[in-house]
Amino acid sequence: MDIDSLKPFFQPERVALLGATQKFGFGYGQTKTLINQGLGDRLFLVNPSQQAVFGTKCYPSVRELPVEVDLAVLIVPAKVIPSALKDCAGRGVKAAIVQSAGFAETGPEGKKLQDEMVAVAKEHGIRIIGPNCMGVVNTANGFTTTETVEEALRPGSIGTIAQSGVFASILMDVAPERGVRFSKVITMGNRSDVDETDLITYLLNDEQTKVIALYLEGVRDGERFLRTVRSATRRKPVVVLKGGRTPAGRAATLSHTGSLSGEDEIYSGAFAQSGIMRVRELEELLDLSKALAVQPVPRGRRVAIVTTSGSVGAMTVDMCTDLGLIPAELSSDTVRSVRSTAPAWMNVRNPLDVGPSPLFFKGVEAVMRDPNVDGVIAVLLIPWMVVEAIRALGIEIGHSLADLSGIRGLLKQKPLLFSMIGTRELKELVQDVLGEDIPILSSPENAARVFSHMARYGDMLAGSPA
Amino acid sequence: MDIDSLKPFFQPERVALLGATQKFGFGYGQTKTLINQGLGDRLFLVNPSQQAVFGTKCYPSVRELPVEVDLAVLIVPAKVIPSALKDCAGRGVKAAIVQSAGFAETGPEGKKLQDEMVAVAKEHGIRIIGPNCMGVVNTANGFTTTETVEEALRPGSIGTIAQSGVFASILMDVAPERGVRFSKVITMGNRSDVDETDLITYLLNDEQTKVIALYLEGVRDGERFLRTVRSATRRKPVVVLKGGRTPAGRAATLSHTGSLSGEDEIYSGAFAQSGIMRVRELEELLDLSKALAVQPVPRGRRVAIVTTSGSVGAMTVDMCTDLGLIPAELSSDTVRSVRSTAPAWMNVRNPLDVGPSPLFFKGVEAVMRDPNVDGVIAVLLIPWMVVEAIRALGIEIGHSLADLSGIRGLLKQKPLLFSMIGTRELKELVQDVLGEDIPILSSPENAARVFSHMARYGDMLAGSPA
Repeated sequence: MDIDSLKPFFQPERVALLGATQKFGFGYGQTKTLINQGLGDRLFLVNPSQQAVFGTKCYPSVRELPVEVDLAVLIVPAKVIPSALKDCAGRGVKAAIVQSAGFAETGPEGKKLQDEMVAVAKEHGIRIIGPNCMGVVNTANGFTTTETVEEALRPGSIGTIAQSGVFASILMDVAPERGVRFSKVITMGNRSDVDETDLITYLLNDEQTKVIALYLEGVRDGERFLRTVRSATRRKPVVVLKGGRTPAGRAATLSHTGSLSGEDEIYSGAFAQSGIMRVRELEELLDLSKALAVQPVPRGRRVAIVTTSGSVGAMTVDMCTDLGLIPAELSSDTVRSVRSTAPAWMNVRNPLDVGPSPLFFKGVEAVMRDPNVDGVIAVLLIPWMVVEAIRALGIEIGHSLADLSGIRGLLKQKPLLFSMIGTRELKELVQDVLGEDIPILSSPENAARVFSHMARYGDMLAGSPA
Repeated sequence: MDIDSLKPFFQPERVALLGATQKFGFGYGQTKTLINQGLGDRLFLVNPSQQAVFGTKCYPSVRELPVEVDLAVLIVPAKVIPSALKDCAGRGVKAAIVQSAGFAETGPEGKKLQDEMVAVAKEHGIRIIGPNCMGVVNTANGFTTTETVEEALRPGSIGTIAQSGVFASILMDVAPERGVRFSKVITMGNRSDVDETDLITYLLNDEQTKVIALYLEGVRDGERFLRTVRSATRRKPVVVLKGGRTPAGRAATLSHTGSLSGEDEIYSGAFAQSGIMRVRELEELLDLSKALAVQPVPRGRRVAIVTTSGSVGAMTVDMCTDLGLIPAELSSDTVRSVRSTAPAWMNVRNPLDVGPSPLFFKGVEAVMRDPNVDGVIAVLLIPWMVVEAIRALGIEIGHSLADLSGIRGLLKQKPLLFSMIGTRELKELVQDVLGEDIPILSSPENAARVFSHMARYGDMLAGSPA
């Protein structure tokens, strides 16, 4: 695949919007979004029945545009799209995002129309994302064909590919609350032309992207996908959440993006072989992507747990064991050093339950330094009443936390997967102190899942068996 | 067990607090909490070295109290507790909550002290909760020996038993945000006397409690527990999250509450036989308890899914299938009735993906009415930009949702497990419209887990095989 052919989707010189409208409904949000992102005279609205939309001039046809454009965004009715694409070809368009629905996902008639559209595009050398999609978001330059909350556009390093538009919109809605930041977000819809393999290749070569996260319902060309992914995963981690794993799920995916999701066993084997990390749940996808974006993979499966609650320590080590991780045996040096400052009641072992002592972050640092430990899961629980009591003494909880510079220095060597159970407000306070290199994951159980995925990926990179 | 012997823990006539202190540290929060809850002249503070604490008179010894008290709360050092209990016996105490640590959880010495304490209590007919615990919360009368956020005291119907205090505190911290409301919360600590079986029996007979939720690290008396629980689960649902399932987890529990958690296979079998619903994760515990508190159990495993995102519909039906649920085949009447108002592009099947149409709640009602459906999982995704666009038209999203009275009428017959993926603000807006009988669960995946637990429990109640 020629990567340059995808460039106009993400870094267009000039953009034409076919079907620009200020009428509330489909197209309204896309029109507003394209107008508001400051493309200025690089954006051309097209609508034969309007003089202007939201105060911006409209051209009656793409044929009438004063200059050539490289990207067209189409929100016109499905049936006019093949001919609109012909017009686009005449004005230099190299890439088209077809957001309109009404193609293969609706049945044989729609499939015919989709094939016709693809034939026109092929003939004129136009690449297509869609139809039945929301297109792209590029946080590096702020270009987006999808209306989204502004905070979701803060640049990050997670490149995300999804099939359905609603799903991608919701991902962007929840991302800011979860501390997830994207480099690119792409929805493929019916993927009549550009597919997951093309996009993985693109993201692999995209400087901003460190982690590739996909929601897939099936792979369009299995062999090509595997060939691409096998080498991709050696360069960047690839995380996949696959819908349509079961017969009922497969039937469901068929009816909404016209994609056949195929037998799950085949995918399982192929994913594992190619070093893809496969997750089963949405929170797991977000947590794993978040962690991979900022932390190293562990060199092995020996995990240490530090917590302020013995119950949660026990639950977390249970979950780690279920997942094939190995509870690390702390070295005698670590035990001695922690014990030297610990109160008498504290059992210095793994999981390390520091209870209400102020030794939580010191404990984390000590086990991070331990050569017997490949990575750490830290679970901080602070009852809200303690936060309030400390506040009553005039101390903000953030300032009362220990100095983290020692821990930060160790983050290049091994992962520190952090989680909390507690009020939102407390999580936000602590996240501010931890900073972006220590994201708070959604639960201790998911921290264990993330560690397990990372460890398997680390094995793959090191060439040892999965 | 004599249930009346536990009554003073939850509905004391008069309370003595031994070790009252206004010094910041252990005991400070408990003292403040007991003073501030309006017990007035029913509360007696005891501390030999203080005249008054927080402006409230202190007695030098429990022996000097002017009247008898039925409940003593002890936050004095471990070693003086046996003799303090003797003094308590002389002033009518029938129940003691020993919050102090320093007993069996610290080793053989502590275990001896604990045995001595229990012997004194037995001799004088005093029941003990603890040691190494935070005692009780009774939302029905506002009595609490645990300092907690005020919103956690809003009366509810989930009776919760935990071992560790921090864990229970955190549960109460997060409960208001999750819409979880308790009838009672009890932490047992080392459970030297009152144990989980006693407390289950108590909650079974507690009018406010509809669901019993336990975090356990092991059962003190297996045979008695099973005998009790086997009949308990026929009257009220019992949900258990067990820490120490694995060897590493067991070792962890031993060192923090001195409890031996035992072989997991034994528990698995015993729990299943006795109709206990066993969960593996904290969110699952909260979600399942929340659902059981307000919704009926399904009569079978046939689940219908209604959603606004095809991707999420596929993921949810995958998860349901994994868990042994059966995707319901919608009756021809339901299909016909939905199709009559649906746009052409909508595939009327299960999962029912209504897309951006306004038919979400109508779809939910239609499948709720379907005799082929035993229960419904509804997953609502609304992109935030849609909420804003609707707002720009002067409409609040809450008011734009359909009339739910038809759905509410059906909630007595089958469960409607609701979940959303979206911003906090949107979830709160929608929860306000749904009201307390339709709680929003934490994720679609957990809604599937909750349905599966409920279906198995329903089978047990109906006498069919699990």
